[in-house]
Amino acid sequence: MAVYTQVPAEEMAHFLTRYDTGALISAKGIAEGVENSNYLVETQDEDGRRERFILTLYEKRVNEADLPFFMDLLDHLGARGCKVPRFISDKQGNKLQQLCGRPACLIEFLSGVSVTEPTPPQAASTGRALGEMHVAARGFTGTRRNSLDLAGWHDLANKCGAHLDQIAPGLAARVRDELTFLDAHWPAGLEQGIIHADLFPDNVLMRGDEVGGLIDFYFSCTDIQAYDLAITHGAWSFSADGGTYHPAVGAALVRGYTSVHPLVDAERAAFPTLCRGAALRFLLTRAYDWINTPPDAMVTRKDPLAYLRRLDFYAAATSEELLGA
Amino acid sequence: MAVYTQVPAEEMAHFLTRYDTGALISAKGIAEGVENSNYLVETQDEDGRRERFILTLYEKRVNEADLPFFMDLLDHLGARGCKVPRFISDKQGNKLQQLCGRPACLIEFLSGVSVTEPTPPQAASTGRALGEMHVAARGFTGTRRNSLDLAGWHDLANKCGAHLDQIAPGLAARVRDELTFLDAHWPAGLEQGIIHADLFPDNVLMRGDEVGGLIDFYFSCTDIQAYDLAITHGAWSFSADGGTYHPAVGAALVRGYTSVHPLVDAERAAFPTLCRGAALRFLLTRAYDWINTPPDAMVTRKDPLAYLRRLDFYAAATSEELLGA
Repeated sequence: MAVYTQVPAEEMAHFLTRYDTGALISAKGIAEGVENSNYLVETQDEDGRRERFILTLYEKRVNEADLPFFMDLLDHLGARGCKVPRFISDKQGNKLQQLCGRPACLIEFLSGVSVTEPTPPQAASTGRALGEMHVAARGFTGTRRNSLDLAGWHDLANKCGAHLDQIAPGLAARVRDELTFLDAHWPAGLEQGIIHADLFPDNVLMRGDEVGGLIDFYFSCTDIQAYDLAITHGAWSFSADGGTYHPAVGAALVRGYTSVHPLVDAERAAFPTLCRGAALRFLLTRAYDWINTPPDAMVTRKDPLAYLRRLDFYAAATSEELLGA
Repeated sequence: MAVYTQVPAEEMAHFLTRYDTGALISAKGIAEGVENSNYLVETQDEDGRRERFILTLYEKRVNEADLPFFMDLLDHLGARGCKVPRFISDKQGNKLQQLCGRPACLIEFLSGVSVTEPTPPQAASTGRALGEMHVAARGFTGTRRNSLDLAGWHDLANKCGAHLDQIAPGLAARVRDELTFLDAHWPAGLEQGIIHADLFPDNVLMRGDEVGGLIDFYFSCTDIQAYDLAITHGAWSFSADGGTYHPAVGAALVRGYTSVHPLVDAERAAFPTLCRGAALRFLLTRAYDWINTPPDAMVTRKDPLAYLRRLDFYAAATSEELLGA
């Protein structure tokens, strides 16, 4: 959410000569995305034609070895009509560069804004875009392991240990019980494929009620596709503190998704469990960050308990309540 | 250099309906300027015409009561051909708004990039733009006191006190001696007018070797115009650490300035003293920030000694060395 690497304008202008984009005429460091440095840059070619791009320098959270997977995935999805930002090739056909000592990429700019309080029509568009992405990803041959899977949650819970009880009394036991439940009930045999795995409203660029772009695929991986809908359901259908469920938003999201990617009976039956897993995943990553971020750091710590409240909700919910009859 | 106030997209879209700009289609928080929150926003009207603006929310360093002065000044300068960002009026003719509990303004977007290592041609363009701004400001009737004048430097030195010696042994005495010199030699009777007072490379948007815009007028005030050239000389003509003077850059800056705003003999004679004052001004504000910013804060502390080195340089320089024969 900050610009970690300051790129001098002279270096940026020189960097852009590798591409067929015209010359640099504007560059603004933008506060967005995971822990990368991002610039919104504008170029102008000899005919006066202007174009905008996102220039991303990868700092630490993104593993450079994963970048080709993300590049190939977005190429595949873009070629199939999904509104995702394509990585731009330079004159030699390279997409991955080095800039100021960091891996760096030039990426298509998409317009749209990230909404804070999604409406049902916006949730419906997002659900449809997610479903279309899942369908479009079917022919994609790349794979990437989800490190934040059930085994990963166990790891995180162990790392947090008794510190969880400093966040809320009894939280360590609650997490342990939930992991026991998920070990016993996590569904096997559901359709796997590419998932976004982090489709919060922050990562959807809306144009009015329509999706202008799905962005920030840096958690995308291979996992149960209905689990992606569960993550998105938790991210879109609640108040920020997790205390209030917005049923019309949740229903619209599901309706949009199933209009292009219907759920089979096994996916419907497992959906509350998938939602519990999704809630636990964000509870644990937030708890880990909470425990490991000093309270006076400039970084905003996101409240883990907002996901405990979602977990409580999902533990009491039925498939019918979440997905309709 | 960060976004302090997060404006929800819904509120921003609603805010923009006050203006004749079309609807919001993109908004990116940008890391730029003094301690304000800035967004680069894009709108699209019913005919598909797109426009970009800077949306600024004023946080604390800018006094709301000063905003009408800045607005009127940039209107005046813009109407006389200076490349400065105009404040945009809403449908009712208002430029100053409230958004998320902050004073807020919509401001013209100008393209260009801030260079890190200015070349002589870039310095010449900047000098010319500064001179043109001084000429254009002549008919402007608004005034604003420079709180960072000689009296203000005394105040800052007193507030820093003996802490200055923690930055460098002997610095407190050096500052005291310099203030004694400036009290005795600060020129009276030089032409006063509107000055930018902070024209660092950060605040000039370059398009190649040409100035695309002068920005960030939030220190602008009424003072000796040749002092503005002295500030700009110190900001442009040295390595960042102040240890190396770039004479070709300094000469080009002066040549550009005097091509549109010649210096009279009294200004030439006083120029080394004005440069010493400018160096002391930034030495003292940096020292004050250094002393009052915890070393582990996320804010970058700028080295006060980079301005002590400039001060040393100017104390030994003659008018001829700085301004040519």
